[in-house]
Amino acid sequence: MSSATPATPTRPVHTGAVNLVTLEDITAAAERIAGHAVRTPLVPAPWADRPLWIKPESLQPVGAFKIRGAYNAVASVDPARRERGVVAYSSGNHAQAVAYAARAFGVPAWIVVPEDTPRVKVDATRAHGAEVVLVKTGERESAAYAIVEREDATLIPPFDDPRVIAGQGTIGLEIIADLPDVDLVLAPVSGGGLISGVAAAIKALRPEAQVWAVEPELAGDTAESLAKGELVPWSVADRNRTIADGLRSQPSPLTFAHQQAYVDGIVTVSEDEIRSAVTTLAHRAHLIAEPSGAVTTAAVLHHSDKLPTGKTVAVLSGGNIDPDALATLLQA
Amino acid sequence: MSSATPATPTRPVHTGAVNLVTLEDITAAAERIAGHAVRTPLVPAPWADRPLWIKPESLQPVGAFKIRGAYNAVASVDPARRERGVVAYSSGNHAQAVAYAARAFGVPAWIVVPEDTPRVKVDATRAHGAEVVLVKTGERESAAYAIVEREDATLIPPFDDPRVIAGQGTIGLEIIADLPDVDLVLAPVSGGGLISGVAAAIKALRPEAQVWAVEPELAGDTAESLAKGELVPWSVADRNRTIADGLRSQPSPLTFAHQQAYVDGIVTVSEDEIRSAVTTLAHRAHLIAEPSGAVTTAAVLHHSDKLPTGKTVAVLSGGNIDPDALATLLQA
Repeated sequence: MSSATPATPTRPVHTGAVNLVTLEDITAAAERIAGHAVRTPLVPAPWADRPLWIKPESLQPVGAFKIRGAYNAVASVDPARRERGVVAYSSGNHAQAVAYAARAFGVPAWIVVPEDTPRVKVDATRAHGAEVVLVKTGERESAAYAIVEREDATLIPPFDDPRVIAGQGTIGLEIIADLPDVDLVLAPVSGGGLISGVAAAIKALRPEAQVWAVEPELAGDTAESLAKGELVPWSVADRNRTIADGLRSQPSPLTFAHQQAYVDGIVTVSEDEIRSAVTTLAHRAHLIAEPSGAVTTAAVLHHSDKLPTGKTVAVLSGGNIDPDALATLLQA
Repeated sequence: MSSATPATPTRPVHTGAVNLVTLEDITAAAERIAGHAVRTPLVPAPWADRPLWIKPESLQPVGAFKIRGAYNAVASVDPARRERGVVAYSSGNHAQAVAYAARAFGVPAWIVVPEDTPRVKVDATRAHGAEVVLVKTGERESAAYAIVEREDATLIPPFDDPRVIAGQGTIGLEIIADLPDVDLVLAPVSGGGLISGVAAAIKALRPEAQVWAVEPELAGDTAESLAKGELVPWSVADRNRTIADGLRSQPSPLTFAHQQAYVDGIVTVSEDEIRSAVTTLAHRAHLIAEPSGAVTTAAVLHHSDKLPTGKTVAVLSGGNIDPDALATLLQA
């Protein structure tokens, strides 16, 4: 929870030893990703109890906002170095985003995933032309660094990276362009790359707008950390309880510093509220959200009284839900 | 089927006694609807066998492209006259679109629907503030004209109207703005307002692009009419066989003249192909389409060999599918 200090566009804000991304970083990212990420619209949601728009990042090429940060990071690497390839450790949307960006630049990509990753995700990553490296759970990071050394390749972290944060921040630029008098922006939080970038952009362009984070109760480490003013680690087992499989990470010092500087508040949502939001988005907005992408809508539907009032944008971060899980939710 | 004569922007094309809408009509419509219709993006569909983008009109406020034509028509009425209200006969997306536009202007709307219209559709229209007038099937038009006379109100036809066609044509402007080198645009055809407007815009701005219509085999009157070079009426009973409930109308002389002037070809799709396209759009594009909206994707998935090659845009016209029908399709 912060005092919502506005960023100055030209001078980086320092929080201790950490440099926060600037509006210039984010506008530069917007130029790099133009034509490669979809310029998503704001979709009016007249069925809510407040003026609400959904920002459907589910419509990105890889089905999630991750393409923005991954593409910006790959595009920012020195071309001679980029030729030697990029590396990511992820079993989720970031893996596909890095694979997609690498193919766009015609460079090799190695994606390190645990050997128990569902076949469908492995196939999806391979379909983007990446080499999938299967390793034992818990060895992902070390395996990724080994490839980086062997190939002299470049690691593209999922969130703990200013280039990735700046790429995600382009969502904030688009929100302000489409709804200049927005009052409240809601984004999911997990590793924190998305909310860090979005909040940095919003606070630079419209300091009076509030930016709130939303996370599952069952992976509520960020809510606890913001309340205590320091990172409070939760166990992997605890965080893995939520169905929101994209929200099981926790912030790094870099993304936590952005949140302390720019995020005005946080609400948590229950598993049932997340499921109900997936169904509402399908029936009322004609959008398919993965559980992680539905948390912001869940916050509006079930916790509106805890949120500031006014014109609200809910970032729907992705749509990669398992077809069987989707069918079950829509059957109810 | 036509010789694809390009429209000249400043001089109306005459086909017999019929004036076709011009690029100027369509650009004027774009100015009127800006901020009221969603500026939909082109969503890349890398899962197709050709470079394909989906234009998701399902994201409009009423869940369908109809808001573009209805809003433009209501906005075009003389304000003093508009105050007295607008009238539409429709049980579908056009009804909600006219109701929505009327409320945006703060004027009354009467929507005439058959008394056997599903309650959910009646409620949705009422939710937009319109007065729903229930009449016997077959008396819709006469009842609508009776209200027009009684109230001195203005009828907003679903497709047989230059203002409505021009509004739908704004989709074509957006396609060219986002993909200037598009080779092929696919749009559903029924009454023909959508394809008429889209084709007029595309042929004016990029005559070398092809515009093809798609319709259900079971309501294939337009394919037969274009082949014969004259309107061939099909019975209501025949046209009502398709699950694509938005594609059960047939062209008017006005919309047929546009198709003869501007449409390069037409393909028909089966009911199973339509169902399969709804499922593919949900799983691969994270978009919920109603059957009528999925026909263009069905054409690409199942009849690609009959279509011109190259960069293709499929207009997904709407997303208002019955929740039970959707659940059944996604269960399969």
